[in-house]
Amino acid sequence: MRIAIDAMGGDHAPGLIVQGALEAAKEWPDTELLLVGNQAVIEPLVKDKLPANVKIHHADDVIGPDDEPVKAVRRKKTSSMVIAGQLVKDKEADAMMSAGNTGALMTTGLLVVGRMEGIERPALAPMIPTMDDVGVLSLDLGANMDAKPEHLLQYAIMGSIYRAKVHGIQKPRVGLLNVGTEAKKGNELTKAAYELLEQAPVHFVGNVESRDILNGSCDVLVCDGFAGNIMLKSLEGTAGAIFSVLKDAFGSSLLTKVAAAIMLPKLKQVKKKLDYKEHGGAPLLGLNGLVVKCHGSSDATAVKNAVRQTRIALQGKLIESISAEINRK
Amino acid sequence: MRIAIDAMGGDHAPGLIVQGALEAAKEWPDTELLLVGNQAVIEPLVKDKLPANVKIHHADDVIGPDDEPVKAVRRKKTSSMVIAGQLVKDKEADAMMSAGNTGALMTTGLLVVGRMEGIERPALAPMIPTMDDVGVLSLDLGANMDAKPEHLLQYAIMGSIYRAKVHGIQKPRVGLLNVGTEAKKGNELTKAAYELLEQAPVHFVGNVESRDILNGSCDVLVCDGFAGNIMLKSLEGTAGAIFSVLKDAFGSSLLTKVAAAIMLPKLKQVKKKLDYKEHGGAPLLGLNGLVVKCHGSSDATAVKNAVRQTRIALQGKLIESISAEINRK
Repeated sequence: MRIAIDAMGGDHAPGLIVQGALEAAKEWPDTELLLVGNQAVIEPLVKDKLPANVKIHHADDVIGPDDEPVKAVRRKKTSSMVIAGQLVKDKEADAMMSAGNTGALMTTGLLVVGRMEGIERPALAPMIPTMDDVGVLSLDLGANMDAKPEHLLQYAIMGSIYRAKVHGIQKPRVGLLNVGTEAKKGNELTKAAYELLEQAPVHFVGNVESRDILNGSCDVLVCDGFAGNIMLKSLEGTAGAIFSVLKDAFGSSLLTKVAAAIMLPKLKQVKKKLDYKEHGGAPLLGLNGLVVKCHGSSDATAVKNAVRQTRIALQGKLIESISAEINRK
Repeated sequence: MRIAIDAMGGDHAPGLIVQGALEAAKEWPDTELLLVGNQAVIEPLVKDKLPANVKIHHADDVIGPDDEPVKAVRRKKTSSMVIAGQLVKDKEADAMMSAGNTGALMTTGLLVVGRMEGIERPALAPMIPTMDDVGVLSLDLGANMDAKPEHLLQYAIMGSIYRAKVHGIQKPRVGLLNVGTEAKKGNELTKAAYELLEQAPVHFVGNVESRDILNGSCDVLVCDGFAGNIMLKSLEGTAGAIFSVLKDAFGSSLLTKVAAAIMLPKLKQVKKKLDYKEHGGAPLLGLNGLVVKCHGSSDATAVKNAVRQTRIALQGKLIESISAEINRK
């Protein structure tokens, strides 16, 4: 099993990315990790001898967080991200992961790794946190702004297989993000998608309203990238606004300051629970290989967790299973 | 100024609706209020002599909260809601308000009151709360699930005029709900709407992300009914989930219970701040008359506040101003 890691992408690259990779290499000696990035920068970070299952693959360029995605991928052929994608494309790696520029990674997936046959639109599928700490795999969360009903159907199939293979859920419940729970609710897109999902080889549990997402009413949430983004950012914004007002309220008197000190650990717990960035890497599904987006702020533990997740997906033959199901008819 | 009030619609109808109307009648003797509903039920609620500026307009039927909107409006011609709409249509009232079935009220607006000439799609425009307590008028929040760029343009014009006339904002900032702040972001709908809004006779401040809504970055938020609903319900759901987890956390030990007792008033304040139901009646804009949706849980104060708001809109010649602007070219 060979995983290419973009060592230069992310807020803490290359330091914590390399550290996480080394920890993962130690934990899983059967997995080969290819650190893609500037050799002169990475080598000093690997203080001792390089472990047998870690290799450095030199790349002299880097795609930055502010680079325009499509331009960057087209022009920076020798960037760590594009080379990692090329390794997957050339079957020199089974998967790649990056904590770098999200748009550029989606473009690398499409233009370098390539779309899976039969898939119209790949999807970015992060886990949205739920109050029961299980989380819901939500797709698409931003790869495609305009989706057709058939795309939502493919998202449902890919998401179900991912949840089954990676999280061991036998019969993942698939929900359709909508404005009401009744079958006839929604816009033209969701109404048509509803009909397709009823006939699909997935466990479709119907429409799910955005106010019920955090209650964990499904395992896979299907939506177009626009609505999904609106939902995710509303969640983030509301949580942020509440915590900021609470902070002000806590500081308003000596008594409330004391109460705040008592409550602070609990509040932090709630805040962390709602932080979707804490919930692992997001797969880009529908490509000719596994591409995992790690959050930009990933530390060594996050990188190690993403390697764990990627290993499970590869062991479960995720890509092959999706391809078989999509091309079944 | 004559306002028809659906006395039979809402969780607290007719009791608190009638009470609110009587309070409003006392406060504004220049305003004539028509209580539309079952005379035999309403009369005993008006204990003393009916004030000179309140009349009961009999309607023997009622549209319930679970009635299918279009069917109910078509079949229940003698319901309080439909008759209130008919009074506006017949120019026997200048405006109507109801705390009843939202879908039925939108249908009454379209089928009974009638669409304003030049308007393609009327919009429901509630105030979404913001942390600075000013709030943002958001439209459309559910009247039309599939909008075209031209509809969003009309929403922007109608919303701006409403904010100017009713809230006295000289140059209301119009934002477009989108997935990023840059001009080229979004789906086909928002990209095309952006170009129209740049040319429109409104103070367009660009794209607004859903995570920034609560920070009050605009006075009018333009969106299609589907995305708007997803946003509003995400906000509700997140706030609800956070408060429920905090409640659990507060109860976990004696110490945290003490802290909770100290913090409770502050928490309730934050909760109330975020409750969009607290933020007055929502106008249905784009009709041949003013129709105001009061929240289902409206009490006497809410009804009185809605009358206040409706009076201001009528005094400002809201409908005439919208019609003049829409049909200007």
